Amino acid sequence: MRGAVMHAPGDVRVEQREDPAIVEATDAVIRVSAACICGSDLWPYRGAEEFDDPMPMGHEYVGVVEEVGNEVKTIEPGQFVVGSFIASDNTCEICRAGYQSSCVNRVVMGTIGTQAQLARVPLADGTLVATPEQPPADLIPSLLAASDVLGTGWFGAVAAEAGPGKTLALVGDGAVGLCAVLAAKQLGAERIIAMSRHEPRQQLAREFGATDIIEERGDEGAAKIKELTGGLGAHSVVEAVGTQESIMQAIRSTRPGGHVGYVGVAHDVELPGQELFFSHVHLHGGPAPVRRFLPELIDLIWRRQIDPGTVFDLALPLDEAAEGYKAMDERRAIKVLLTL
Amino acid sequence: MRGAVMHAPGDVRVEQREDPAIVEATDAVIRVSAACICGSDLWPYRGAEEFDDPMPMGHEYVGVVEEVGNEVKTIEPGQFVVGSFIASDNTCEICRAGYQSSCVNRVVMGTIGTQAQLARVPLADGTLVATPEQPPADLIPSLLAASDVLGTGWFGAVAAEAGPGKTLALVGDGAVGLCAVLAAKQLGAERIIAMSRHEPRQQLAREFGATDIIEERGDEGAAKIKELTGGLGAHSVVEAVGTQESIMQAIRSTRPGGHVGYVGVAHDVELPGQELFFSHVHLHGGPAPVRRFLPELIDLIWRRQIDPGTVFDLALPLDEAAEGYKAMDERRAIKVLLTL
Repeated sequence: MRGAVMHAPGDVRVEQREDPAIVEATDAVIRVSAACICGSDLWPYRGAEEFDDPMPMGHEYVGVVEEVGNEVKTIEPGQFVVGSFIASDNTCEICRAGYQSSCVNRVVMGTIGTQAQLARVPLADGTLVATPEQPPADLIPSLLAASDVLGTGWFGAVAAEAGPGKTLALVGDGAVGLCAVLAAKQLGAERIIAMSRHEPRQQLAREFGATDIIEERGDEGAAKIKELTGGLGAHSVVEAVGTQESIMQAIRSTRPGGHVGYVGVAHDVELPGQELFFSHVHLHGGPAPVRRFLPELIDLIWRRQIDPGTVFDLALPLDEAAEGYKAMDERRAIKVLLTL
Repeated sequence: MRGAVMHAPGDVRVEQREDPAIVEATDAVIRVSAACICGSDLWPYRGAEEFDDPMPMGHEYVGVVEEVGNEVKTIEPGQFVVGSFIASDNTCEICRAGYQSSCVNRVVMGTIGTQAQLARVPLADGTLVATPEQPPADLIPSLLAASDVLGTGWFGAVAAEAGPGKTLALVGDGAVGLCAVLAAKQLGAERIIAMSRHEPRQQLAREFGATDIIEERGDEGAAKIKELTGGLGAHSVVEAVGTQESIMQAIRSTRPGGHVGYVGVAHDVELPGQELFFSHVHLHGGPAPVRRFLPELIDLIWRRQIDPGTVFDLALPLDEAAEGYKAMDERRAIKVLLTL
């Protein structure tokens, strides 16, 4: 089969890879219907994260089940499935508490590479969720979004305790952040302030439910949020970048007793203990337990209540993945969908 | 009046100070019935925190109202009152959300000094809670504990979401930590593991509800907690020290999705962002909003449901405050009560 492989920062090639096969009796192999490039793929692409060359790329996927292992009970060949970027058994105590991305038996899909024609999905019963039937083509981008960016943005908004009567602020206008806006709207947030300087992203933020856009960043951004919230700060802040500046901007934008939901993978971040202590915020985040939200998200998409697929503003055939990475790196695209 | 003043690390003197008077119309002046020395007073005492000499000491207090300002409506002379270490209006949006220690009009009592015969309490209506009547003498230590250590330990246990069916672990066996054990027991925690090496503190932890005591510290302590919780970590962990080692011990003792409640004032702490991200814990804490809990705590004490006053294992007259600081510094006493 063909699949995307990173050989060095800036060097992604689509090449022949060995077809995946069932390894464990709990595996499934799926034929990928659509894959995409993640903001987190840009860290190694930009040389900001070490990796072993060659690294198969991709961890977001939707597709049709080709084959399942002997112990797979609920997933069947022919089903259209959505899965999370971390495979989970969905039965351990951590999964049952809603933290499937820290499942005691978890397998990180990033090591498998779903920007490919076929993909092996471990722990199929606990990882994959089947759609009610084969989806119409126009729902595929949204279902693909559910597999990572929507699920992650949703977790950010839940971790930030977005809800009725509350103001939510967003730090980070990438696809995850924009999906957090959509989530906050669904969760009933009264006011949603997106911090963004990029016109197409501002536009999408408004479509997803942002009531205010501010262009200030860092401490100026935090000061602006305070100004807009009677000097107090937002009740809920989603951080979807992962830098020192962005997390401090999020903490400083939050009122005492408020909630920071952080879903940007932290890179070279050190949180000053004393400032955090006196900030009085709640801090929660990490790798999103997308599996927790998948049934609800698939249902919302199926009933056309939400349309997160619009975060994909560029679609390319898998073979042009290299151009997709380039477009995202140069911020010419918010998020790239790879067709198969 | 006489009051304790710190002149240099290790140098606390009880000396003549000016009698406090009503300054703002919302003030009260109280005759202090009992005061005490706080673990946080040891930071400047040990030279680990800078201060302006001379610094009046003390922020915990119970006493009888002597006089109130013109705008005080609910507090009257003659009442026996308990107050928090941070004065609050209890009406602003932050107070109403339960974060009185971040009240927009807060006044830190530490700048006033309650290890003294009299004390001015700002924002009396929002800060002081009167007991149903004059308390019997044997309840005074517990009521005094409510003013800081109990309220702080309680907040730690609430922030750690202690509750039925859950295991709570405690890092820090000082008076606050021990009160967190008592709080966790009241909040219904199923199992309470106190980390302590000090026999009298272990003893008190058991009296307050600890089901297990472990002596390991740091990463060994965290490993022991994991061993006792099926490899997962505790659901709830209270951190009541404030050092880099103690907060990391707390985070590493907590299962994914679990809650760390941290109430030790952070000193020279830097939290590694990536480890925190992948730990999946909830982190919440800061200066305890004691005022939120005071009515409930006073009620529990009044009905003799809890007896937190036993954290005071040494009582000295105010004039011997210097010896009290020494005893706590040398860990000869868990907590010192100053009689007046």
